[in-house]
Amino acid sequence: MKIDLNCDLGESFGSYLKGNDEEILKKITSANIACGFHAGDPHIMLKTVQMALRNSVKIGAHPGYPDLQGFGRRHMEIPPKEIYSLVLYQIGSLHAIVKAQGGELSHVKPHGALYNRAAKELETARAIAKAVHDFDSSLTLFGLANSCLLAAGEEIGIPTASEVFADRTYQRDGSLTPRSQEGAVILDEQQAIDQVIRMVKEHKVASTDGIDIEIIPDTICLHGDNERALMFAEKITAALNDL
Amino acid sequence: MKIDLNCDLGESFGSYLKGNDEEILKKITSANIACGFHAGDPHIMLKTVQMALRNSVKIGAHPGYPDLQGFGRRHMEIPPKEIYSLVLYQIGSLHAIVKAQGGELSHVKPHGALYNRAAKELETARAIAKAVHDFDSSLTLFGLANSCLLAAGEEIGIPTASEVFADRTYQRDGSLTPRSQEGAVILDEQQAIDQVIRMVKEHKVASTDGIDIEIIPDTICLHGDNERALMFAEKITAALNDL
Amino acid sequence: MKIDLNCDLGESFGSYLKGNDEEILKKITSANIACGFHAGDPHIMLKTVQMALRNSVKIGAHPGYPDLQGFGRRHMEIPPKEIYSLVLYQIGSLHAIVKAQGGELSHVKPHGALYNRAAKELETARAIAKAVHDFDSSLTLFGLANSCLLAAGEEIGIPTASEVFADRTYQRDGSLTPRSQEGAVILDEQQAIDQVIRMVKEHKVASTDGIDIEIIPDTICLHGDNERALMFAEKITAALNDL
Amino acid sequence: MKIDLNCDLGESFGSYLKGNDEEILKKITSANIACGFHAGDPHIMLKTVQMALRNSVKIGAHPGYPDLQGFGRRHMEIPPKEIYSLVLYQIGSLHAIVKAQGGELSHVKPHGALYNRAAKELETARAIAKAVHDFDSSLTLFGLANSCLLAAGEEIGIPTASEVFADRTYQRDGSLTPRSQEGAVILDEQQAIDQVIRMVKEHKVASTDGIDIEIIPDTICLHGDNERALMFAEKITAALNDL
Repeated sequence: MKIDLNCDLGESFGSYLKGNDEEILKKITSANIACGFHAGDPHIMLKTVQMALRNSVKIGAHPGYPDLQGFGRRHMEIPPKEIYSLVLYQIGSLHAIVKAQGGELSHVKPHGALYNRAAKELETARAIAKAVHDFDSSLTLFGLANSCLLAAGEEIGIPTASEVFADRTYQRDGSLTPRSQEGAVILDEQQAIDQVIRMVKEHKVASTDGIDIEIIPDTICLHGDNERALMFAEKITAALNDL
Repeated sequence: MKIDLNCDLGESFGSYLKGNDEEILKKITSANIACGFHAGDPHIMLKTVQMALRNSVKIGAHPGYPDLQGFGRRHMEIPPKEIYSLVLYQIGSLHAIVKAQGGELSHVKPHGALYNRAAKELETARAIAKAVHDFDSSLTLFGLANSCLLAAGEEIGIPTASEVFADRTYQRDGSLTPRSQEGAVILDEQQAIDQVIRMVKEHKVASTDGIDIEIIPDTICLHGDNERALMFAEKITAALNDL
Repeated sequence: MKIDLNCDLGESFGSYLKGNDEEILKKITSANIACGFHAGDPHIMLKTVQMALRNSVKIGAHPGYPDLQGFGRRHMEIPPKEIYSLVLYQIGSLHAIVKAQGGELSHVKPHGALYNRAAKELETARAIAKAVHDFDSSLTLFGLANSCLLAAGEEIGIPTASEVFADRTYQRDGSLTPRSQEGAVILDEQQAIDQVIRMVKEHKVASTDGIDIEIIPDTICLHGDNERALMFAEKITAALNDL
Repeated sequence: MKIDLNCDLGESFGSYLKGNDEEILKKITSANIACGFHAGDPHIMLKTVQMALRNSVKIGAHPGYPDLQGFGRRHMEIPPKEIYSLVLYQIGSLHAIVKAQGGELSHVKPHGALYNRAAKELETARAIAKAVHDFDSSLTLFGLANSCLLAAGEEIGIPTASEVFADRTYQRDGSLTPRSQEGAVILDEQQAIDQVIRMVKEHKVASTDGIDIEIIPDTICLHGDNERALMFAEKITAALNDL
């Protein structure tokens, strides 16, 4: 049973350090590297790419809103045609760094508020999918399972990967419970692992309403920012290997 | 007699407009497009690339210091290894936009304080040349005639273009007279045209000391920011066509 | 008949020029000076303050979202408690420059998307009013006539000024017709002047539905970015003087 | 024996955390708070000011170059007249936050590359001193002992404080040994404490050449970014109390 494990990386900025990239790279198969808009800078990107290559981890661009202060997590009213430009820009910036180090770009996953907007707003999703397509139609677009973003990717004809979360709860419509609501995050490790295993084996997840929804996981999003996250990554991997 | 005429373009930012790109594109053969660090933003870049393609003008990346407020004209103490990263980043950002619009990137010309530093400081020049080389060794590196930057490009084995200025005076060592000094800019149009013609025909320019220096022009830098600049571009072209 | 005429000033940034501050300062009584977040930089602010003082025009802070690229016109999902901090910060930055030049700060007017949000969203309006109050409760808060922002100012007990627009149409609820809708801007000069005169004399304006709404103008917003705007400022002043 | 202990604080940015402000505030008497250019943002500033007030620590503005990525440690070629504006701006931003929380601003200490430049370059030092003077001539200007910055402060007639470093070595001319040179930092704790004690008691420090130079400490700079720094702060305090 092979399933992709991805994590957001390269989120430091200048002298501001974030994450534990060196360690999490040993546990994942795909790295989504920030491209300097919501996090990261050219030199951090270079160092993260070199680390990912040393660990034979697939490299994806992780474009976000131009909002370092808000870490790309605050909605910004940027029209879809400008979303197209800023996604293209960020993919290109990382692509050049990867190519110069002898690697290859493999995927694109939007970040934070842009990811959430693209999950629900088709026009935004299409702008992102078109940017990926126009640059290189062999790149895989990562998006929330059952979201507009995946639909837009399929519509324009690029490979897509349906992303699931181990430690987040789902609503009846397939969206994630917003972090502002109670019960958004699954704190119990075993419960999170069980949720993932069921998604992988049965293609089902129980929504907060108690109703099962269909979900097909191509890639699982992990966090790598603390010791507990690293331990969890190991446990998930072990549980998946046992399948 | 064919000689390349280049101009810096895409220097607007958000709602801040700069330059007269539409008009100058009709008079030049190479456009150096700002990449969002000292000027430009992703959407301005897209629109500028589309205009350049419509005019069949060659497109180059114009990377600069991360200093919008200073328009990349203030020296910043960034070490060469980080110059490598930021040049790579900026080349990539423009490359993606050009590729997505069906075009091709043809050259790279550093901007402002980075251009001047690379003319004199070999380590910085090498970092830039290596960034160009590592991304795509068929790109042409534009640099000040007789400068370290051209030497670094030749050393690493990428095509280079020796750039000359019509309206700037030269010092005995081949460097431009700094703008802070009197006589840095040639205000008389005919004198500027004569200087260019002599560079093209005789490969010589008189330094401010009155001593001739050798100079081989592959590309001439023009300005496009006002009506007078546009007129001058026409006159230079006419004079070159008459050769 | 005395009524305040205000205009947004100091909207240049670095080498990017915007507006015609020198000229419009001769025609207005209050200048709202950008504070470096959506436009302006410390040196532009200093020069604008010096110009305003030479023209004996009242000086106000014009705080906006931290979004130079969008000129503060794009909504950003910043929570009210952070709005409090960023308004305070911007007021302070301008205050220091004004005080150092021997002047006095007289008012605060939020900019763009922040102004519009504060017109409708009471919590945001309260955060802004509290920032003004906590810094200096004698400063006047400018807000859209009949808006939440004025209500919040009155609630906390600071002076307020009800702002009206000559060239914008009003909806039945007192809000401005959004620029995205047809008929948002009054293009006919005489119609715009008539609208202002009626607001000043009768405290009434006809909404787009044809129903009169009450409006009490303390200050009129003018634009100063082109020749036509300057002419219009003169005509409004003349019409008001004739009352 | 009373001597001021100062530390740079509020150096986080958005979701990027730096320093251990809560703990170091218990050990110092003056806090230099970053003003959003090289570090800090309006909300971080507010929270840091509130913490400093709770700990009855004196609050100073810590203005730096507009270079978050370089943390204000890279030289930028900004002319003195613009240094004046940017220092004024940053002082004002913090002043407003402090005043709104019921506190008072007490001092100004330039940061990083600006601090070092002001130590050696009189024109820059004068621009900073003039900004402090023009805003509030009762504020104390912190500068490197025996530096141009203190001279400029005295020249314009504002209070100054001569700052010394426990863990840095001094050159014969009174400047700090640059971090790029060996022996710049004193790693031995007891040696660092001995250096401070001798500066306080004898007004002397041995330069790296072995020659004693005169040094009068008004304030000692401490670091607060790790456990060891916090321990060292305690030891210095204890040693000073024993005098």
